[in-house]
This record gives sequence, C-alpha cells and structure tokens, in this order.
Amino acid sequence: MKRICVLTSGGDAPGMNAAIRAVTRKGIRTGMEVYGIGHGYKGLIEGDIRLMNIAHVGDIIHRGGTVLKTARCEEFKTDKGIDKAVENINKAKLDSIIAIGGDGTLKGALELVKRGINVQFIPATIDNDLGYCAYSIGFDTAVNTVVNAANGIRETGMSHDKTTIIEVMGRNCGDIALMSGLAGGADAVLIPEVKSDIAKIIDKIKEGISRQKKNSIIIRAEGADISTEELTEEIKMGIGEDVRTVILGYLQRGGSPTALDRNMATLMGSEAVRLISEDKPSTAIGFDGQKVTLVDLKIADNIENKVRADLLELVMTLA
Amino acid sequence: MKRICVLTSGGDAPGMNAAIRAVTRKGIRTGMEVYGIGHGYKGLIEGDIRLMNIAHVGDIIHRGGTVLKTARCEEFKTDKGIDKAVENINKAKLDSIIAIGGDGTLKGALELVKRGINVQFIPATIDNDLGYCAYSIGFDTAVNTVVNAANGIRETGMSHDKTTIIEVMGRNCGDIALMSGLAGGADAVLIPEVKSDIAKIIDKIKEGISRQKKNSIIIRAEGADISTEELTEEIKMGIGEDVRTVILGYLQRGGSPTALDRNMATLMGSEAVRLISEDKPSTAIGFDGQKVTLVDLKIADNIENKVRADLLELVMTLA
Amino acid sequence: MKRICVLTSGGDAPGMNAAIRAVTRKGIRTGMEVYGIGHGYKGLIEGDIRLMNIAHVGDIIHRGGTVLKTARCEEFKTDKGIDKAVENINKAKLDSIIAIGGDGTLKGALELVKRGINVQFIPATIDNDLGYCAYSIGFDTAVNTVVNAANGIRETGMSHDKTTIIEVMGRNCGDIALMSGLAGGADAVLIPEVKSDIAKIIDKIKEGISRQKKNSIIIRAEGADISTEELTEEIKMGIGEDVRTVILGYLQRGGSPTALDRNMATLMGSEAVRLISEDKPSTAIGFDGQKVTLVDLKIADNIENKVRADLLELVMTLA
Amino acid sequence: MKRICVLTSGGDAPGMNAAIRAVTRKGIRTGMEVYGIGHGYKGLIEGDIRLMNIAHVGDIIHRGGTVLKTARCEEFKTDKGIDKAVENINKAKLDSIIAIGGDGTLKGALELVKRGINVQFIPATIDNDLGYCAYSIGFDTAVNTVVNAANGIRETGMSHDKTTIIEVMGRNCGDIALMSGLAGGADAVLIPEVKSDIAKIIDKIKEGISRQKKNSIIIRAEGADISTEELTEEIKMGIGEDVRTVILGYLQRGGSPTALDRNMATLMGSEAVRLISEDKPSTAIGFDGQKVTLVDLKIADNIENKVRADLLELVMTLA
Repeated sequence: MKRICVLTSGGDAPGMNAAIRAVTRKGIRTGMEVYGIGHGYKGLIEGDIRLMNIAHVGDIIHRGGTVLKTARCEEFKTDKGIDKAVENINKAKLDSIIAIGGDGTLKGALELVKRGINVQFIPATIDNDLGYCAYSIGFDTAVNTVVNAANGIRETGMSHDKTTIIEVMGRNCGDIALMSGLAGGADAVLIPEVKSDIAKIIDKIKEGISRQKKNSIIIRAEGADISTEELTEEIKMGIGEDVRTVILGYLQRGGSPTALDRNMATLMGSEAVRLISEDKPSTAIGFDGQKVTLVDLKIADNIENKVRADLLELVMTLA
Repeated sequence: MKRICVLTSGGDAPGMNAAIRAVTRKGIRTGMEVYGIGHGYKGLIEGDIRLMNIAHVGDIIHRGGTVLKTARCEEFKTDKGIDKAVENINKAKLDSIIAIGGDGTLKGALELVKRGINVQFIPATIDNDLGYCAYSIGFDTAVNTVVNAANGIRETGMSHDKTTIIEVMGRNCGDIALMSGLAGGADAVLIPEVKSDIAKIIDKIKEGISRQKKNSIIIRAEGADISTEELTEEIKMGIGEDVRTVILGYLQRGGSPTALDRNMATLMGSEAVRLISEDKPSTAIGFDGQKVTLVDLKIADNIENKVRADLLELVMTLA
Repeated sequence: MKRICVLTSGGDAPGMNAAIRAVTRKGIRTGMEVYGIGHGYKGLIEGDIRLMNIAHVGDIIHRGGTVLKTARCEEFKTDKGIDKAVENINKAKLDSIIAIGGDGTLKGALELVKRGINVQFIPATIDNDLGYCAYSIGFDTAVNTVVNAANGIRETGMSHDKTTIIEVMGRNCGDIALMSGLAGGADAVLIPEVKSDIAKIIDKIKEGISRQKKNSIIIRAEGADISTEELTEEIKMGIGEDVRTVILGYLQRGGSPTALDRNMATLMGSEAVRLISEDKPSTAIGFDGQKVTLVDLKIADNIENKVRADLLELVMTLA
Repeated sequence: MKRICVLTSGGDAPGMNAAIRAVTRKGIRTGMEVYGIGHGYKGLIEGDIRLMNIAHVGDIIHRGGTVLKTARCEEFKTDKGIDKAVENINKAKLDSIIAIGGDGTLKGALELVKRGINVQFIPATIDNDLGYCAYSIGFDTAVNTVVNAANGIRETGMSHDKTTIIEVMGRNCGDIALMSGLAGGADAVLIPEVKSDIAKIIDKIKEGISRQKKNSIIIRAEGADISTEELTEEIKMGIGEDVRTVILGYLQRGGSPTALDRNMATLMGSEAVRLISEDKPSTAIGFDGQKVTLVDLKIADNIENKVRADLLELVMTLA
C-alpha cells in the first residue's frame, strides 16, 4: 500500500481545498494511505503529519483558503531545514509528496527531488506567475473578485464623474491586472513586465472625458514601474480632476473558488494520484485551459512566464 | 398639474436609483410632471434640469450609484449659491423638490425650506448617520458588502493563522463597523462614538489564539480614536505576531442594492410623491425597519444619532 | 449552573446558525451549560442531546442551513411524542429550551409550555408568516435570493422579448413574493391573501409592450389562487405571446445569510439567554426591524399575520 | 471604408455583450462602419439595421443577455427567408457579417456563406455543444450559476438529511451537468451522451448514507435518458427516503458574465474584426482555453462535439 502526503505552501489560493479533496479521496479509493501536512513545508519540518480520511475533506470543495493551512517558511530555504523535512518524510515512510503552491513551493519541491524524494507539484497561486503552465489554481477566482469589485467601483465612480485607480496583486506578474482589466472594461492597465506610458493613459482618459465618459478605471499591478501614489498624482495633474484610489489587498485571496478553479484543481489532484500509482517520476502538473499537462519537475522552474503584452493595447482600443 | 423635481446629492448610495424610479413613475402616473436634476445641488445652481419619462428610469432599480449623478457642492453652502438655486426652481415653476442624500443634503434642504421652497427629503447614505431615522438607503447594502469581504478575508486569514484588521467607512458614525462586525463574526469593533480599549482587544485575540483560533478579525471604522496604522502596530506588539490590514475604501459604495435598500427607497420615494400631491409641508421621510416615518424637515437635523454601543460588548462575547 | 438546550425545527432558514452560535457562546460565557438537540423536536423525543462548546459553533455564522439539523416531526404532534420529549428534558435536567423555527415549531413550543417546560422561541422561517413579529430569520436572505434570480431572468427575458412568471415559496403568506416583487421591479405579484385579477395583469403587460417593454416579470407565490400552469396559459392567451416559467423551489432556502438575518438571529439568540438567566417565563422573541421584541409565548400563536396588500398596487404603479 | 454588421441569434448567453462591444469599438477604431442587427437573423430578414457608435456599447460588458436582442427564426431556415436576408445585406452594402450564437446560428451562417456572403462566426451558447471549439461564450457563467445554486441547495439538503436532484440545461450536450457536477461536488451526474446506470447511483448514495452523508446531490442534464420524474421515483424507492427536486431552468441563462466569458468574447470579437480587415474568408472563430482558434466556417459544423465521459467516473470517485 502506497503512503502519500499532501501539503499546501506559500500564499493560499481559492481552489486549494478542491485539490486536497481530490488527492485525499482518489488516493484512499485507489488503495493508498493519505496523510495531510499542516502549514506546508513548515509542517514537514516540524512533523505536523496526520492521517486523512474521506470525511476530512467533506464539505470543503466550495471553501476558499486551505484546510491544511499554509505558511511561508524561511527554514525550508536552508539545507538544515530541508534535511529535517526529508528525515520526517522517511520516518513516516511516505512514498511521495504532493505539493500545492506557487513559485516558492516549486523551488522547495525541487530541493526535495534533489534529495531523492518523489514530488508531484500542483500549481496554485492567484498571481499565475508560473511559466510552465497556462493556469494556476486561484487565478480565475482572483480575477473574478477583482472584476466584481471593479463593477461596483465603476458605478460609484460614474455617479461622481471620477476616475479611479485600482491596485491589484502581482509583484512580478501582470496577469491579474491584465485579465481583470480586459474583463472589467478598464481604460488602461499597468503591469510589471511593460514600461508604463503615463502620457498615453492620460490622453485616453481625456478622450473619454471628451465624450462624456468621466469614470475611467485604471488597473495597476502592485509591481508596475510607478507607484499607486505617483500614478494618482500624475493622472490628477494630467487631467486636472480629482482621482480616487482603491487598494484591494487581501480581499483578492478570499472567496469561494470559481467552477474553473475547482475543476482544474480536481483534475490536477486526481492526476497527481495517478502519477504516483503508476510510479512516475516527479512532475510539475499543469492545466492548459482544457486538460492537464505534464512537465518534468526538474525543469519546470526554468520555463519563463510570458505575459500577453498585446492585450494592454487591446484594453485601450476597446475602452 | 404639479411639477416636481428629484435630485441626489453628496456621496452616492446603492438604492438611490430605486428612489428615483419610484418618484418618477409614481409622479407621472399620478399626473405630475417630473424633472430630474443632474449632479445634485450643483445642477440646481447650474440649471441642469431635464424632463423625465417612464422609460428613463427603466432597468435601473438593480443598479448601484445614481443615474442622476451626484456631487459635493461648496457653492451651495453660500447664500449666493442657494439663491441661484431658488431662482432656477422658481424659473422652472417647480412646486416641490425631492432631495435624496445624507447629512449635508439635509442641511441644504433646510436652507431651501427657509427660503420658502417645499422640500421632501429622503435619507440615503451608507454611513447611516442621520439621527432622525433608523435606516438610510445604502446602509444595508454597504454592510453586506463588508460582510462578504470579511468572509473572504477570514478564509485567507485562517489559512495563514493571521489576525486581520479591516478598515471600513464611518467618519462620525460606527454603524457600518458595528453591524458588519456583528454579522461577520468579528472579534472586536472600533467606532468613533466609543473610546477604544486596545488592551481588551489584545486579550480577546490572545484568548482566541489559546483555543487555536488564530484568525481574528478586527473591524475599525475610519473615525475611530486610533488610526489603522497605530492599531496594527499595537496589536502586532501585543500578540507578538504579524497582523494584516485591508482598507475597503470605495468598494463599500458600489454593488447592486439589497432588497431592503430597494424596498425602503421605493416606499420612501412613493411617500414623497404622496406628500406633495396632498400639499404637505416639507418633511424628512424615514424608515424604521418596516414602514415609512415622517418628521418635520425643520427639526430633522437636530435629532442626534444614537449608536448601539452595547453591541460592541456583544461582538466580543460571541467571538 | 443553568442547563439550557437549543434546537432548530421545521424548514431550515439561513441565519439559524447565527442564532445557534449566539445562544451557545452567550450561554457558556454567562456560566450556563448549553446542549444542542439534533433534528429538532424529533431529537428531543429520541434523546439526541449533545453538550456544546465554544468551538462547536465556530465558523458557522456565514453558513446557510442549520448545523443542528432539522426535521418535520409528526410524532411531536401526538401526546405520546410530546410526553416522551418532556421526559427527556427532565431526565437531562434542562432548565429551559430555546426553540428556533416557524409556525409549527411555535405550536410545538406551546405544547411544551403547557406541560410546564420553559421555552424561549426564536422565529426562523423564510416565509415570514408568524403574526406576532415583523421579521423572521431567513426571510431577508430568501427575498434577496429571489431578487438576484429575477435580475438574471430579466436579462435573458429582455434579450428574447419574453414575459416570465417566477413561482416563489409562500403557501399561506405572500411576503416573499411581495417584497421580492417590489425590489425586483416585477410588473405584478400574486399572493395567497388577495384574490388575483388576471385581466388587470394582462393589461399591465400589454401596456408595457405598447411602450417596447416586452420582458415583464410576474411573481407568483405558490399559494396564490391560480396555479402557475393556469396563470401561464391565461397570460399566454391574453397577450398573444409565448410566456416563460421558472419555479425557484429549494433554491430559496439556501445561501449564506444576509447581514440582517445574521444580526437579527444574533440579537434574538442573545436575548433568549438573557431571559433564561433572569428566570423569565416562556417568551416568543421577535424583531421589529431594529430591535428585539417580546410576546408571551402562550398568546403568540393567536396573533394574525398581516400582509401589506397595498404594495400589490404599488408594484403595478411603478412597473 | 469597410461596412460590417454584428448580430446575436438563438438562445442568449452571458458574454454576448462583451463580444458586441469588442466588435463595435475595434471596428470603429480601425476605420470601419459598424452596424447592429436587432433580433438576429430575424432582423436581417426584416431589415432591422442600425448604425452603431462607441457610446452604444458603453456600460454593457458586465451585463447578461444581449443588447442587440436575439430570436429563434423559422423563416431563416427557408430559402425565401435567407434570400431576403442576402438582399438586405447587399442593399446595405455590408462587406461582412459577424454572427454570434450557437449551433443553429452556425448553420444559418453557412447558408449565407453558400450565397456568397462573408461571415465571421463567434460561438456563444451556454450548452457548449459546438464541436469545433472547446469553449463557447456563456458556458463558464452558466456552470458557475449552477454551482452556486448547488451550494445553497446542498446546505438546505444537509440540514434535512435529504438527497436532491438538480435538473440543468443540456438537451444534447452534458457539459453543463458534467462541469458543474465536478465543481459542485455532486455524487453523480447524468448526461445525454452516456447511458445512465441508476443502480450504481443508488449504491453511491447509500454508501454516503452509511457514512452519515445524507445530502447527496445528483445533477441531471435535461437530455439524459431518464426523466427527472422517473429518476426521482427510482432513487426514492432505491434508498427508501424522500428525494427533493429542483429544476433550474432559465435561471441558467442569466447573470453577469464571468471574467473568462467576457475575455473570451472580447478576444474573439476583436479577432473577427481583424479577419475582416485582412479580407480573410468566412471563419468559425473559437477559443481553446487560452487563445483564439480558427476553423474554415464551411467545415465547422461537421466537427463532432466530444464529451469527457471519463469525468462521470471521477465525480463518483470523489464524492
């Protein structure tokens, strides 16, 4: 009988619970023993390991966050920490680890793989900044959360004839900003990957004002090359009107996962169990919009993330 | 044939459109001519007056904001501004004004009344800070918006074992904080009307941590006696853990109005038209939770707003 | 030390969990032992009694349904059943019962009171058909659920120029239909308490069509004097166009409770504990829109429910 | 200057408005004249053609349904009807038609193509039953609507220990049922493409009951090989308990489109304009989950739709 464990690490993302449910139930029902690790790699170091059963993952598919809890773990970036984790894995006689998380979690997984541990990796980060796969768990939910917030903000902005800047998450990756800007009918989007052209944005807002559209929405990823404060100041001066600012913050992590995030998580969780049952090597599992994709975990971190910079232009064309 | 006009002034509030719809349609269907003023008192000064018809208010009952637009108007605080408005009212031969807004709008209405204009006032402010009535349009929607945000924030906080401080609107009035704190299962609430007891809040959070509840939620009205930054710092030191902060901001003004806000707005809008058709004097219309209430507009502004400070204690008892 | 128990009976209603939480936590924190009964009166008969602690009611305030579960119980309508319940109450040495539910639950509570049991009753029914109080837990949520559904249905109806009939809950009471009709901008509402005037409804729809509004919404309470099938047929013939029908059904019971339902439930749950701690007699607790109200439980069931039939006319005036 | 027109035909789908907005604005801003046809092919026959401007499609991206309205049109299935449409297209000197809709709309488009008209086709149907592309506009929104409804239904079912059957749309295609079943944590799903195994479903429900999970959810596409009534009856007998039924109906067409549906619609609308500007032949545009895909319109209707029948098994494994 195979013994596997599942953990969530790094920032939480809506849909992680659907992946935990899929791993646990498919694992148990295909004859495995499934263990849950509390608080990600931190729990692996501290030996926070519990046996899971079918009921443990009941009634969680619709819940945001992660029932296994998560943490950022500095100790796991040290050899000592990782060695301690490997020791615990071996002590618990675990055949394989299913690690769910983002970029940092993938890096941690690679360290385990280097030490001979079999790891199946499932991408979960609202930032969607993993280069080896098109979608990560939580991204679709986060985009919808931003779009819904933008809807409400647009209505109050329209009532007052105000331009509003919305700051969204994305330190290195503009995907949330880009996709929520496109879906929210924003007038411009600023992302870390592309140099911002403030003059062009001001012209766009002015063009809107000239046709009586006085409630422009600008979406700025937190990693863009101009701060929210500076951007606000420049636009204020540029258009000669007051400008509102909203920083969405942790709001973007919450919320019941969308159907897509749940289904992607379910399919990838199920695939992870299949890979283990068939004794496959460590894999970075992905989702391309329709189906599960597989990449050797050892090279997954080297694949650069691409942003669809052409969409920045489309946002402006359509606003 | 009576000629009436409707305007929305001050901060927008979800449900204003339902009131505009009720005034317009009931007015027209009981034989009145109904005019809409753009941008509140500012439009009254500038003569931004348009004739409304049944179709103008179609498909707006579910929309946040106000289709008549609103503004804050410094000029209307001067005699010159008010006189200009009165002149426009007389020029347009308007028998009565229906003014929809908050505290500032009520004060403006009183100035018009002093100059012999008949004004029916409908309370609409998410802050719910009008003393003469229990509910104002937009408050229920804003509270639900905060509660939904708090739900999501709680899930991510739980995943990371983090305490989170949520800053909500309310410069002078703690109602949004209090009612969303009670409904959101917050651990403590800070409001402008009551001196904050930070030591007690820290004890409460620690008590939670001692029974493994590590994701406390603290809701702070923006007018509370300690800033969000200071509060964050003090709690961080008090509990010896990192603390998250979310400032909801303009998000709280947006969103499709709840059924209660729509119905209250509809009943009050309908009542305003009835009062005019029966040649009643200027009235501050209100809603007590079930039915419309009436107060002489001249004294409405003198009635002090009360906060249910006993609920602060209940929040902590139940957390 | 007082020993109290809490149960939910009859149809579930969103917000019941907030009441259970308030009773449990306030009870324990004011020095009581709190027991939960599973499946309402059925559990009382079967002795399904468990001791509650603070953690049992954590993370439930936002959840629909009832964690104590509920049931309709025929046996509790017989002397034998009630006597068995009384026996269990006495065996468990319970000082007081807090019963949460609708009309049937109130009747059951009265039977217990007649046998000398102290009962504090909290109204929870989406139908809002209890005469002694203005609001019951779950009603506000159900109305908002219907209004949101109606929003979506209106959009598809508008795209196809179709009239749609929406059947909502309410066998004896038209409150859901009335309040969701008013808030949803329905063109007409049919309720059990008032004889339907189909010809007038058809005229109203035709009037809309004549001004290019071809997507009328008619809301019919299930207890209205004409069935959904007949109504559909008559309107179809009357307007000479196809008519759509949607039966919302159990959808109306679900959903996360609104802030109002949670707060009302919390205040009433808290009040129930206070009444017991002060040795008050059996009481039917209510909520009038702002604050808790109290009625002698023995007479609560005799107070007739009133419907605001004047609103039927207002719905049509404003559509 | 190119003259193009856009129409929506067949059943409406959330996201159609985002496509109309993209076509209109990108068309105008790349130097085209854009016309909108009312009520789909019916409007083409009747000459219901209007010139569009930038403002016409403002504030519609978030709205369900279609501002151009839609219809099912029997006349367009006749040569006479199609010839009349072609005549109107030529009279209006339209260079190209952008047709947005489902299977019937695609068939209609093919007839126009056969008569020498250039047509760019954009898939929009909540059923997702077009074989040539993976996603159609509206599908993601519909699945999320069903999943949200299922969440609420699950809570009330859990409170009463009841199994519930939810009937969803899908006469020929089980995609809504399958994807919402997977995301909603359903216990079984019945779809038109696969023979139903009622005995297996009953065993699954019983297995749940044996471990105290008494609120199973069964999702049945309307085109499955056993009716909702029969299914209810068989399950009722099989498990020896009462079973609830909910028919979601037109509710599934409504609702603000999800970010994915808006973005897909926007990208495809934008692509349609590009194809026309580059004088490309008639194309069936699609979306594969990430990016736009192109298929010769003449063969698009011959590509068979595939259902992921393996997911039926996964639903049961994970429930």
